[in-house]
Amino acid sequence: MNLCYAERTSSIKASEIRELLKLTEMPDIISFAGGLPAPELFPIEKLESITTRVLREDGRAALQYSTTEGYAPLREIIAKQRMPKARVKATLDNIMITSGSQQGLEFSAKIFINEGDVIICESPSYLGALNAFKAYQPKFVEIPMDDDGMIVTELEKALEENPKAKMIYTIPDFQNPSGKTMSIERRKRVAELAKIYNIPVIEDCPYGELTFEGEQYPSIKSFDEDGYVIYLGTFSKTFCPGLRIGWVCADIEILQKYIIVKQGADLQCSSIAQRETALYMQTYDLDEHIANIRSIYKTRRDVMLDSIEKYFPKDVIFTRPKGGLFTWVELREDLDAAIILKDALEEKVAYVPGSSFYANGDRANHFRLNYSCMNENLTLEGIKRLGSVLKKHY
Amino acid sequence: MNLCYAERTSSIKASEIRELLKLTEMPDIISFAGGLPAPELFPIEKLESITTRVLREDGRAALQYSTTEGYAPLREIIAKQRMPKARVKATLDNIMITSGSQQGLEFSAKIFINEGDVIICESPSYLGALNAFKAYQPKFVEIPMDDDGMIVTELEKALEENPKAKMIYTIPDFQNPSGKTMSIERRKRVAELAKIYNIPVIEDCPYGELTFEGEQYPSIKSFDEDGYVIYLGTFSKTFCPGLRIGWVCADIEILQKYIIVKQGADLQCSSIAQRETALYMQTYDLDEHIANIRSIYKTRRDVMLDSIEKYFPKDVIFTRPKGGLFTWVELREDLDAAIILKDALEEKVAYVPGSSFYANGDRANHFRLNYSCMNENLTLEGIKRLGSVLKKHY
Repeated sequence: MNLCYAERTSSIKASEIRELLKLTEMPDIISFAGGLPAPELFPIEKLESITTRVLREDGRAALQYSTTEGYAPLREIIAKQRMPKARVKATLDNIMITSGSQQGLEFSAKIFINEGDVIICESPSYLGALNAFKAYQPKFVEIPMDDDGMIVTELEKALEENPKAKMIYTIPDFQNPSGKTMSIERRKRVAELAKIYNIPVIEDCPYGELTFEGEQYPSIKSFDEDGYVIYLGTFSKTFCPGLRIGWVCADIEILQKYIIVKQGADLQCSSIAQRETALYMQTYDLDEHIANIRSIYKTRRDVMLDSIEKYFPKDVIFTRPKGGLFTWVELREDLDAAIILKDALEEKVAYVPGSSFYANGDRANHFRLNYSCMNENLTLEGIKRLGSVLKKHY
Repeated sequence: MNLCYAERTSSIKASEIRELLKLTEMPDIISFAGGLPAPELFPIEKLESITTRVLREDGRAALQYSTTEGYAPLREIIAKQRMPKARVKATLDNIMITSGSQQGLEFSAKIFINEGDVIICESPSYLGALNAFKAYQPKFVEIPMDDDGMIVTELEKALEENPKAKMIYTIPDFQNPSGKTMSIERRKRVAELAKIYNIPVIEDCPYGELTFEGEQYPSIKSFDEDGYVIYLGTFSKTFCPGLRIGWVCADIEILQKYIIVKQGADLQCSSIAQRETALYMQTYDLDEHIANIRSIYKTRRDVMLDSIEKYFPKDVIFTRPKGGLFTWVELREDLDAAIILKDALEEKVAYVPGSSFYANGDRANHFRLNYSCMNENLTLEGIKRLGSVLKKHY
């Protein structure tokens, strides 16, 4: 058998992160490789009571087919309760429910990208997005970042030089993988540039609410008066990923495209998971729950950064993220983090090598560390082990 | 704002079925338009107890991220318990969990279809599949059906005439929309032709287990020794659609493509819904549940067919389905079912006009009737109303 696959199939490959999840499950490994929220914080008992209520009060509807755009009360509470956190004014007509924000990413490329079109993204960027986009055979133009996120003068240059640019992709808050956050001034400028160059911005916001210091920044979409910014939200990091509930917040005309694409893709999200999420937010205080997540992740970040400071070679560079789940480590330019990973695995510690976070894949001397799902003692021990592995190469 | 969308976006449009679901919700309408399973048969109390157990015994894992291919015990029980019903030998390595079989359909086109490639399908065919496929800009070649399903001599001719044919799509059991079933001889022949022409067959099987008379037919995949047939299954019609759990059963090499595509599309299906479905099948007898569905749908089919016989004009042709959810009505060739629908809606009765079930959309004198989610009295009343609308046109 030698079947003929579509060309796009050859340009996508299995994500290293997903493959690495398998390592995570090996006994004794201290893995900083995943991007998992801390499962001990999941509100299991509350969800049990919520589910019972959903099934008893409305079981038939909760188990039946429903509309593609999603359960109206959930869309409503997202518009009224979650979007204001990002300073966005929205109604339920701007919201469609997705299977995590990953589905919103895939749909975005499907809606906007012809083969050969250019996607402008941060360098580095979320590899799950890059892989989803690659199925639509784009070219990528990478914009360098500094401590204030994507450098917008470079973005403007790229927009000028690439008339086939069809989409800007950014994770402004505590970016995956770099941990960096875009400044407010730059957010304004990205919104302006979108309008000037008539190009949509896909603003991917899984971590915005997980800020450790001060208030959440206003989203790029909050500066967007004309509908150029498409905001992707999710409950995966603030509630639980296993329900697979995220959302797209967009201009009504654009949202219509997402709804049509969702119809073909999987008809709708789980009716019962949507009702559970809505009833949870109607019954309990999600903000209080998020405050708890924040405080625990902040402690874990502190332990990780302190341990890196103590045990890594002195000239290793790393991000001091102000929220989110990740820090990003830069090694000496001649070192390859994928090769060093083999040594690390022998010492029973794991991370994700950085090269697959670069859209055009040419930089090997970085890796990503996750601090959200590991207790403080194991974090300290893991970083210590990793430090001694690194010191052999320095 | 005048954003530039991808070309594929212009070739897909909102499904009439989904738009019609809105009519279904209007008060007083007797709607035969949907494809909904009967919600009064959902095992709500059992699911409540199952969910409680999943959350208490394994809540953290049930709410966490998991692997793309799906929860291993669910894949295992599908391979061991559901696939033998279709006479297919499979192991969990052949199974990937999807968000309903709709997602399996979309993935199939994504994996196999380049722009301009030919998809061979039945005439008529499931419009949700046609819409999902259209995003990949194929050409369709429609194969006529008789009472034994797709006419395989016509299929062979089409394979010979279309070297760019990349996929055969078929719903062999109680087809949506026609209600027709492919004979066993033809199933064998389709499997043979797939091998001869080196082309994958997408065998879409949502209704196979809902047989009213005698045993379930062996699937096309049961005659496939070399892996050309990709079988799509779902719990939407035999358990409940609201959980969004379906599956792909395929050769391991092909399944790898589906896993990679799923990774980009939405990472994974709901962890908790997968565990609930698996634990349900481990705890209760799904076959018994399906037997109950069958018996109730059979009664409803009988009432619908008897009423059609009694109230429709005598020269209207309709299918006598031996299972599944639908019958298919053929009007006089000069009549347009979409126009007549307006009269029907005035009489508070609804169906789906047939033209969107034709891939190349050129036949107007059919409509689809659903009998699974309407009680007997309303079915009789609805068909009576529809009969008098039709008689005005005859």
